[in-house]
Amino acid sequence: SVNPDLASERQTASFSVEKLTVLLDGGVEQTRRRRAVVEAIESDPVFSRENQYFQTQNERYEAAVRKGVHLQKKMHEMGWTENGPEYKYIYRALSGDVAFLLHRVFMRSISVLGSDKQIAKWIPLATQHKLIGSYAQTELGHGTYLQGLETTAVFDTATQEFILNTPKISAMKWWPGDMGRSATHTVVFAQLYIHGKCYGIHPFIVQIRSLQDHSLCPGITAGDIGPKMNFEHIDNGYLLLKNVHIPRENMLSKFCEVRPDGTYVRQGSQKINYFTMTTVRISLISDEVLTPLMKACTIAIRYSAVRRQSKLKPGEQEAKILDYQTQQEKLLPQLAAAYAFHFINDYLQELLNRGYREVHRKNFDMLPELHALSSGFKAVITQCCTAGVEVCLRACGGHGYSLLSGLPSLYTKILASCIYEGENTILLLQTARFLIKCFMAASAGQPVPPSVTYLAAVKPGKCPARNKLDFLSPDIYTEAYQHVAVRLISSTAAKLQDLIQSGIKKHDAWNQCTVQLVQAAKAHCHYITVKNFAETVEKLETKAGIQKIMKHLCDLFALHGIFSNTGAFLHDGYTSASQMDMVTASYLDLLAVIRKDAVPLVDAFDFTDKNLNSALGSYDGQVYQRLYEWAQKSPTNQMSPAYERYLKPLLHNTLSKL
Amino acid sequence: SVNPDLASERQTASFSVEKLTVLLDGGVEQTRRRRAVVEAIESDPVFSRENQYFQTQNERYEAAVRKGVHLQKKMHEMGWTENGPEYKYIYRALSGDVAFLLHRVFMRSISVLGSDKQIAKWIPLATQHKLIGSYAQTELGHGTYLQGLETTAVFDTATQEFILNTPKISAMKWWPGDMGRSATHTVVFAQLYIHGKCYGIHPFIVQIRSLQDHSLCPGITAGDIGPKMNFEHIDNGYLLLKNVHIPRENMLSKFCEVRPDGTYVRQGSQKINYFTMTTVRISLISDEVLTPLMKACTIAIRYSAVRRQSKLKPGEQEAKILDYQTQQEKLLPQLAAAYAFHFINDYLQELLNRGYREVHRKNFDMLPELHALSSGFKAVITQCCTAGVEVCLRACGGHGYSLLSGLPSLYTKILASCIYEGENTILLLQTARFLIKCFMAASAGQPVPPSVTYLAAVKPGKCPARNKLDFLSPDIYTEAYQHVAVRLISSTAAKLQDLIQSGIKKHDAWNQCTVQLVQAAKAHCHYITVKNFAETVEKLETKAGIQKIMKHLCDLFALHGIFSNTGAFLHDGYTSASQMDMVTASYLDLLAVIRKDAVPLVDAFDFTDKNLNSALGSYDGQVYQRLYEWAQKSPTNQMSPAYERYLKPLLHNTLSKL
Repeated sequence: SVNPDLASERQTASFSVEKLTVLLDGGVEQTRRRRAVVEAIESDPVFSRENQYFQTQNERYEAAVRKGVHLQKKMHEMGWTENGPEYKYIYRALSGDVAFLLHRVFMRSISVLGSDKQIAKWIPLATQHKLIGSYAQTELGHGTYLQGLETTAVFDTATQEFILNTPKISAMKWWPGDMGRSATHTVVFAQLYIHGKCYGIHPFIVQIRSLQDHSLCPGITAGDIGPKMNFEHIDNGYLLLKNVHIPRENMLSKFCEVRPDGTYVRQGSQKINYFTMTTVRISLISDEVLTPLMKACTIAIRYSAVRRQSKLKPGEQEAKILDYQTQQEKLLPQLAAAYAFHFINDYLQELLNRGYREVHRKNFDMLPELHALSSGFKAVITQCCTAGVEVCLRACGGHGYSLLSGLPSLYTKILASCIYEGENTILLLQTARFLIKCFMAASAGQPVPPSVTYLAAVKPGKCPARNKLDFLSPDIYTEAYQHVAVRLISSTAAKLQDLIQSGIKKHDAWNQCTVQLVQAAKAHCHYITVKNFAETVEKLETKAGIQKIMKHLCDLFALHGIFSNTGAFLHDGYTSASQMDMVTASYLDLLAVIRKDAVPLVDAFDFTDKNLNSALGSYDGQVYQRLYEWAQKSPTNQMSPAYERYLKPLLHNTLSKL
Repeated sequence: SVNPDLASERQTASFSVEKLTVLLDGGVEQTRRRRAVVEAIESDPVFSRENQYFQTQNERYEAAVRKGVHLQKKMHEMGWTENGPEYKYIYRALSGDVAFLLHRVFMRSISVLGSDKQIAKWIPLATQHKLIGSYAQTELGHGTYLQGLETTAVFDTATQEFILNTPKISAMKWWPGDMGRSATHTVVFAQLYIHGKCYGIHPFIVQIRSLQDHSLCPGITAGDIGPKMNFEHIDNGYLLLKNVHIPRENMLSKFCEVRPDGTYVRQGSQKINYFTMTTVRISLISDEVLTPLMKACTIAIRYSAVRRQSKLKPGEQEAKILDYQTQQEKLLPQLAAAYAFHFINDYLQELLNRGYREVHRKNFDMLPELHALSSGFKAVITQCCTAGVEVCLRACGGHGYSLLSGLPSLYTKILASCIYEGENTILLLQTARFLIKCFMAASAGQPVPPSVTYLAAVKPGKCPARNKLDFLSPDIYTEAYQHVAVRLISSTAAKLQDLIQSGIKKHDAWNQCTVQLVQAAKAHCHYITVKNFAETVEKLETKAGIQKIMKHLCDLFALHGIFSNTGAFLHDGYTSASQMDMVTASYLDLLAVIRKDAVPLVDAFDFTDKNLNSALGSYDGQVYQRLYEWAQKSPTNQMSPAYERYLKPLLHNTLSKL
């Protein structure tokens, strides 16, 4: 039975939840297929995550391997394939709680970086799981800066082998997933040396464990890097190489080859390498970043509709905490952000698909823009969604802090997305570099990529809003965001030039501008997000109330961004103080409007209870029963293991020395 | 041997680290005593936290009990007492990783709320550990709003007993520490009923487990609430009461008594109850909030001095990440905040001591101000320090995400401080209520408490700064902070009045202002913090370079606050856009200045390696060796437990169905 406090929230929905779900999925067929996958996965007890919050790192790892193996069977049974339309739903249904994800990266590396002959040899082996692959790039002392990697691969013409070494402790490979305990092979990135000359970083296939008994191969030291904030199910590993010999054929050689006599040959364009990183950054947004935020919103908003605490009106029942303005101000902007980023993800996916087609025709012109956008959006979205999950956790008070709420695990996992696949600050500075370059080009009248043409149309001006309702006009706020982005990019470009002209060296000048460059890159991404949200809303069907509620969310997302960062909009007087008061008024009004549809808006994300895995967020809102039943199953619910040895002697005053 | 990259940072310190340590401790004698305690604790293997990051919840709990018991012996041996000067150092040296903290709360409750007779009976029993106490206030459905508690205590004149019940699942006690598995007794807060009439919440001593064999007493259901984001060492518990009979004498009756015939007698002032909460909120700041931030700063800054990544100048060695402006902008404001809050903590302690003396003389006039300040500062400091620890964690990239860095545990633990002892938003609204009241009083020419007299002196004015150096003047920035606080308080007071005058009911009007009231309360606390930091710096000795570096930190703290919240200062034109550019310039300049002393400034916190318990933060900076050695000890470093059952059949293609 559904908690009446939650049921009542659903009766007053202003729109069709099912239609919104279909919109988010991209069509009726997609919704049907997703639900079929979820059903197949969740009805299979091997994939259960029921005990997850009680398990040790070892148990989590073992379960992930079991699921990884079982998934192969399941896919065979169901007729699902790695490239089929179901795959993304499988991952979402499993909440990523499965081993061998790096095996896929191993295969992709070979497909992209390997010669046809290498692909023909290794891909079938990997597909049939005659080996388990990993991907060893990051070192203990080296992450961001690939050129700094210290692992070496020295070519020996005599034996036609490469000899691999991690010459110092900081050169040790560190972090690769699936490598600590599972993988038999890995792609090692190392500095290539031929006849004493260094040719830079290249990828090599290295076997690390025996296919017979899983023992470590000669010269290999490998193991697990130990406990982390999350990802207990993954055996992130370390790898030391001591004079490990591999055949010449194991250097992945689509782009570079070492001939038997030691001649180094570079072939084809390496630009495609950049493109791989771009693809990875965009692809992680949906599964690793948006889904957790959507789950956190679902949990926190459903909980806030059934949790009653304190009184809003004297003499009445205690109020739902969702009715407090401060609670709305915490949660509803996160909900709006989840939708905003869902739509920008669609935009990025489309751009990426276009990029694919162009690259396929050997046209690499889109790559700089794609790289800049994927870097900036990866940083901005991971940062905002991580902060959003934390807000949701804290908004649930003590119960949010219990692992059983699901929120701590969502937080500790999404946090990693700010670090992996490019640390966010570094990525934002890459976006900033692109923006500064484009700004200079635009200022000089040269053509620039589509997403930055707005930089050419710099105009001073003032915000034309005259009352608080004007701030519900997408033109008004989109223009304001654009203005701020242009101002921050142009003023930082000017500072950079001033510093250089004053005699400061270019790299020092750049470093002295980086705090502001990061701000400029963020402003650019926020502008694009707001603009895209507004454009998406405009294109929606007007029926079923969906356009209306999406318009409210778009307004909220935009106004929340202004309200939380008023200085950027006030700085040069584009927005006046009284206009800012209008923004505040409109923003606070919107909270009360969206609050009415808050539960239907999270219902539309369509998470099952098993997928949420949360005592606070279940569809029926029976929070307290859930918490109590669940806690009773905890392995800590047994007689105190400290009783006989410590508590009893203490209480009976028989501790020797007391 | 110290990593040369770290050693070089220490050679150029602009001040005496030892002198700064002594300043932080409050005197030479305190430093000596603290170090003696640390030495005694850390040389005792029972208190080791070496394996903490590898332990399960059960193991952590058992270790905490072992340490709790051992601590009794140790204190006896060393001649330390609970009220002695060593006690606070003991807790810090143990990093709070010890059981029976609620036993102390149990004792304090009895001392404060019990009659002399009750104190005489229970305190000796507790002191001698003939029982283990806990404190059961929070319920599954009730935290913040005490009046809403649902547990009942019905007085039965026939038997002269109270009969206690948790009549619904939401009435179950939930969260009390030490109660899940250890405690034999607890103080239960329940609605008192006599002859069918409810007299509100009262405290009752209830035995929950047998002193003989630790089995649960009749009518008691109790256990552990399961896994949490941290605090694995504490057995936070649940408690169901079903017709539990306790004697009339077990109601703590300093303030209220139930006579044998059922007559209810209220005696003395209950104002003192408020004071207890105030005391707890202030006392948690140092150990639970400042220490973690100081540790996080120590870890992140030492690591940033030895981590080299990417190049600042082409052709040179990779740069220390501490040399990047963006890294400085992440870490140095957190360091400044640690110092700012250390000094405001001194201020609050002094105020509290004065409060104690006044209350002792039955003068309760200071209580409202103390309550408002302790609430607001508890919220602001826990919030800023939690955010600060997270910044430190993320600033260390992947290695910060390893539990071995120590940072994840610091974060997941400090996060709880935003929730316990009053949820932060609720607390800020209490401060706001006080501020609005004082503002109205001050506007009407009535006297107000010392910390808010500035509200009486509202003047419009403009910031007089003319160049970026002017913003290094404490008068300039303190005035700016004061101006913002007054503006936010007065404008919210005006909005509130307008709403009420427009016919909106008082409680609705209040709810519609809460987002802005929270901002106003924060602005008040920030102003007091900046003012207090500036005044503290002024009073410091000018020798040994300490005043100079503290002045830099004070400037940084103040300017960072403006830089991160420019809108508040720009809004009414108090600060102009060009002045804001001066703030930015001064702020960024300061980063480079303080960066030079960053390592000495964290060295002054004087944490031992054992106390930091971090592979990244050790005094010698041998980060990579430490991570590798430590990871090798992880229980995950054994042959894959999934090999025989899953990996081998997969690799050998002998899985039945594949």
